[in-house]
Amino acid sequence: MMEDTIAAISTPLGEGGIGIVRVSGPGAIEAVKNVFVPRQSKDLAKVPSFTLHYGKIVDPADGKIVDEVLVSVMRAPKSYTGEDVVEINCHGGIVAVEKVLELILKQGIRLAEPGEFTKRAFLNGRIDLSQAEAVIDIIRAKTEASLKLAGRQLSGELREKINAVRQKIINILAFVEVSIDYPEYEFDEVTPETALKNIDEIINDVRRLLSSYERGRILREGITAVIAGKPNVGKSSLLNALLRKKRAIVTDIPGTTRDVIEDYLNLKGIPVKIVDTAGIRETEDLVEKLGVEKTREYLNQADVTLFVVDVSMGIDEDDEKILSLINKDKSLLVINKIDLLQGKVNFEQYAVKTGIKNFVPFSARNFDGLEILENKLYELLLPEQEGGGESALISNHRHKNYLEKALNSLLSAKESIASGEPVDLVAIDLNEALRELGAITGDALGDEIINEIFSQFCVGK
Amino acid sequence: MMEDTIAAISTPLGEGGIGIVRVSGPGAIEAVKNVFVPRQSKDLAKVPSFTLHYGKIVDPADGKIVDEVLVSVMRAPKSYTGEDVVEINCHGGIVAVEKVLELILKQGIRLAEPGEFTKRAFLNGRIDLSQAEAVIDIIRAKTEASLKLAGRQLSGELREKINAVRQKIINILAFVEVSIDYPEYEFDEVTPETALKNIDEIINDVRRLLSSYERGRILREGITAVIAGKPNVGKSSLLNALLRKKRAIVTDIPGTTRDVIEDYLNLKGIPVKIVDTAGIRETEDLVEKLGVEKTREYLNQADVTLFVVDVSMGIDEDDEKILSLINKDKSLLVINKIDLLQGKVNFEQYAVKTGIKNFVPFSARNFDGLEILENKLYELLLPEQEGGGESALISNHRHKNYLEKALNSLLSAKESIASGEPVDLVAIDLNEALRELGAITGDALGDEIINEIFSQFCVGK
Repeated sequence: MMEDTIAAISTPLGEGGIGIVRVSGPGAIEAVKNVFVPRQSKDLAKVPSFTLHYGKIVDPADGKIVDEVLVSVMRAPKSYTGEDVVEINCHGGIVAVEKVLELILKQGIRLAEPGEFTKRAFLNGRIDLSQAEAVIDIIRAKTEASLKLAGRQLSGELREKINAVRQKIINILAFVEVSIDYPEYEFDEVTPETALKNIDEIINDVRRLLSSYERGRILREGITAVIAGKPNVGKSSLLNALLRKKRAIVTDIPGTTRDVIEDYLNLKGIPVKIVDTAGIRETEDLVEKLGVEKTREYLNQADVTLFVVDVSMGIDEDDEKILSLINKDKSLLVINKIDLLQGKVNFEQYAVKTGIKNFVPFSARNFDGLEILENKLYELLLPEQEGGGESALISNHRHKNYLEKALNSLLSAKESIASGEPVDLVAIDLNEALRELGAITGDALGDEIINEIFSQFCVGK
Repeated sequence: MMEDTIAAISTPLGEGGIGIVRVSGPGAIEAVKNVFVPRQSKDLAKVPSFTLHYGKIVDPADGKIVDEVLVSVMRAPKSYTGEDVVEINCHGGIVAVEKVLELILKQGIRLAEPGEFTKRAFLNGRIDLSQAEAVIDIIRAKTEASLKLAGRQLSGELREKINAVRQKIINILAFVEVSIDYPEYEFDEVTPETALKNIDEIINDVRRLLSSYERGRILREGITAVIAGKPNVGKSSLLNALLRKKRAIVTDIPGTTRDVIEDYLNLKGIPVKIVDTAGIRETEDLVEKLGVEKTREYLNQADVTLFVVDVSMGIDEDDEKILSLINKDKSLLVINKIDLLQGKVNFEQYAVKTGIKNFVPFSARNFDGLEILENKLYELLLPEQEGGGESALISNHRHKNYLEKALNSLLSAKESIASGEPVDLVAIDLNEALRELGAITGDALGDEIINEIFSQFCVGK
């Protein structure tokens, strides 16, 4: 249990009906008592856990009412952090909530660091590390698919799978260590054959978890799609069509889109960050040039590029310049303005000329081809899986990293057994795999890494 | 009591530690029961009021966990709305909170209109209208001064003052009506002299309330300050200096600020919306022209204009053009770039040339003159009050309107008495004043006006 008491605003900042200041630690109840005047006279220190209390927050400095509030009291150890927690529900509004926080901090309470409430929940053993990470994922979820993925992790599903694998390793390790300690005996149970068979099974478990990563990552983190193309081919109109609302100003002056503009799109459950760029061209204009440099940067980070051409203009040098910057295998060619077409056009020609084999004829004006475009984009991102199944369980890069390390240790243990090396070496590898899997649930991690993980949280969580 | 049950997200949308879905009405508890799985088996319909319950929101469609939540139950009539209220505290995050709301709405619950929770609190008699309006003011408060002003109104201070005035009117009216009903009697208490004296006292009360309006309005709504001046005199740098952070991009290319940029400044408790404008000049560039037109619009709305000139360039035709658009009495002349000066300059000259008598020599580069500028701006907005005192009690335009109407009715009653007109006429005027004052606390208002008032709230309040 931590010794100091922390507080922070736990709701997003902005105008809203309710804003919450959360206080956690041994001094939480006392601190709130000092600024809270309950409607009915009562002692917060004596109220039952999991009860709510109506009253006013009063500034002790001038006796003026700051806000009307509801105060929740949840005592250790059954609370979000595992400590005494008091939550003050204020009328929303930035200044009111900040003023309440300020008054609490004046009672000798420390401002919480980002993620510190959840970190305390972890350190106090209320949740494991993968569950704590699921909390961030729930907060950041951009689509329902990613929300439910995080919900499964929060429920402890990943921890159970990891612990099952670890148990299998421990079972082997028990025999291996017995044969290290008593080399004079032979144990039927640890013939190299059975050990190999058991390790193979574990390796398969780990591989199965790892194979779910790509889908998991895309669902959790989403992808970045960059809209590129020379000026005036309809990049902003494509963005608008995809977002189905007016976001960027669309005008007929080339180079109107000064800044990179981004927004999120929900593509059948995949969160797609979609970035519209200023026209890529050589220019003397300083402001415009900034836009071009940003475009190059974004193209480097793009998971997929939507390369837009104007069917009424064909492909020219300017197009070629941009084409030289993009990864054509991870691109979709959008042949725009087909509403202007008179007569037939061989769209395949554009695929050949640009070298981008996925293409879609499109009209940003009347949305012709929009659904095909979305389908092709989805397929480019998440190709039909062999075998099918849901399986997206691993979605976090940190988890993937430790699974890969564990896999290597397991492969090394397997090789040692196969080549008849001393059992000591096998034990070292298996212990290593155990530690690496433990890092996912937080059983074997240093303070530094734990601090690093929680620093990704927002304040108030 | 309303018959249907409503729900909405009551926290601001965004990433945060906690997001709340609020449900109010006779079906609130039942609806939440359908999607909530408590950690310890219990019946939400039977738990005591003002208690919290930990558990999970599960999508009945697929049995998947949507979020881990805390559910608060507050039963009628002691709740925010005066009805059964259930609040679901979710892990923050837009998708999670929206999904929980969606599941609640699927239980046959209606999405709440903006302000509907507070409207129900008013309609159920838990608060008067001026208190309900104070709730919006708390949410919208931009500074601590405006927050505390709203806090006083929320505590019922305005209602008490208004009711005291109404009581005085009722006392006179009682006598007046007796003398209407019994014209054959003479009552010593209602000699024209005492009636006049009493009405004068009431008129003074109303005038005192009204006189606090200007300060109250400025504290509550804040003011709009527009920064104007020709290109490259340092408008954006002035904005940055005032905000003391980098907000607008500052470059050396005239006309870089394409859009009107605004932000809030806390000027000793006054919320100041400060607007930076694109350079005002005639131009052929379409995008730039939009900026100029916006500037004109903003100048028309400005409570005060900060007119910036470059001391190294003097006043020329371009300055004159802009000067012709602004209200010089409500302007402050900012003589910028004094850091570039060599030798002495007669700053008074600038005041004479521009016709703006309030001026301040300034350097956006090293912030010279910034404090003087802020002081002069404050004085221009809130001149030292005769008599002093706090007194800013009326801050809402609606209240001011009804007070003015009541004042007119009272003046008319006074005149009728003075000129010896029949007491019936006096009674009509006094009743009118009574109704008008009642409109402030909501005692005498039609549905339409009430709907209009609550529509200004945010959803979830």
